[in-house]
Amino acid sequence: MDEGFTLWFTGLSGAGKSTLANLAAEELRRRSHRVEILDGDEVRMNLSKGLGFSKEDRDTNIRRIGYVCNLLARNGVIAISAAISPYRDVRDEIRRNHRRFFEVYMKCSIEKLSERDVKGLYRKALAGEIKNFTGISDPYEEPLSPELVIDSGLERVEDSLQKLIGTLEAMKYIRNGAGR
Amino acid sequence: MDEGFTLWFTGLSGAGKSTLANLAAEELRRRSHRVEILDGDEVRMNLSKGLGFSKEDRDTNIRRIGYVCNLLARNGVIAISAAISPYRDVRDEIRRNHRRFFEVYMKCSIEKLSERDVKGLYRKALAGEIKNFTGISDPYEEPLSPELVIDSGLERVEDSLQKLIGTLEAMKYIRNGAGR
Repeated sequence: MDEGFTLWFTGLSGAGKSTLANLAAEELRRRSHRVEILDGDEVRMNLSKGLGFSKEDRDTNIRRIGYVCNLLARNGVIAISAAISPYRDVRDEIRRNHRRFFEVYMKCSIEKLSERDVKGLYRKALAGEIKNFTGISDPYEEPLSPELVIDSGLERVEDSLQKLIGTLEAMKYIRNGAGR
Repeated sequence: MDEGFTLWFTGLSGAGKSTLANLAAEELRRRSHRVEILDGDEVRMNLSKGLGFSKEDRDTNIRRIGYVCNLLARNGVIAISAAISPYRDVRDEIRRNHRRFFEVYMKCSIEKLSERDVKGLYRKALAGEIKNFTGISDPYEEPLSPELVIDSGLERVEDSLQKLIGTLEAMKYIRNGAGR
């Protein structure tokens, strides 16, 4: 019982990774799972201070998150990462190190993201004011076979949550229902 | 039940931290606890590549171990660190971040360590061939009030293990006996 795994969100800035990650964490805790969210900013402060946004530094940061997720997952915790994690090879390397890994691709077009642009980052990035901005001036490599794709430009977040939890149940990552 | 905590060993190189940490891990696993040892070398490779042995870099490395230990401990795992961790302020900072923290000072004189010198490191350090060697060319600050002091220059390791497990029981970090 109570087997851990890593729930790995990937996608562009603003695609809704953190929002869905936090809702999923809430629902999983309600079902008595142990859950730990590795927030991108907190991890950068605690594990990766001094690293920048070059490919090499991003890879190092993501590998560290993956290492910590794995430590938690193999000890019965559902470890959730919600970092952009733009490079496929590093995501797949982390997957290979895991016994149980569930990747959620938060898909959303640049057009949609630029339209919303809650933090005004896309406007700045498109104007060339932010360097190494994933999706604009830095690559984002889509996952080839994630366990789940969420089209966050179309779906309502409550529906995405239901889809995620349903898939976790169907694929036996978690037990069905409230399951106490 | 099954509450996690961090079991933090500190002491000079060769004082027996890893040996006792591994024996303790074995005994605690036998008692059905979840245990994770954060091995100094593995952590350096996974979380601290590029860091050296200056005070600043050592502190960063130790803080990262402390952060990961805390993530594990608050999720029900007994997280064991066996790094030298020479500076008192950083150890105490990590303690303050924890809800449950147990510090074991592996005490052993430089004379005794130089006499044993299994890896030949003390000979080299005394000859000036290793820079920043804790206890010789770099400071080691003894803990002022660790939960346990082990005099590894005098005690047999089986006795140290018994003392450690007995103290963990007496201080209610773990349940008495084999406790399945």
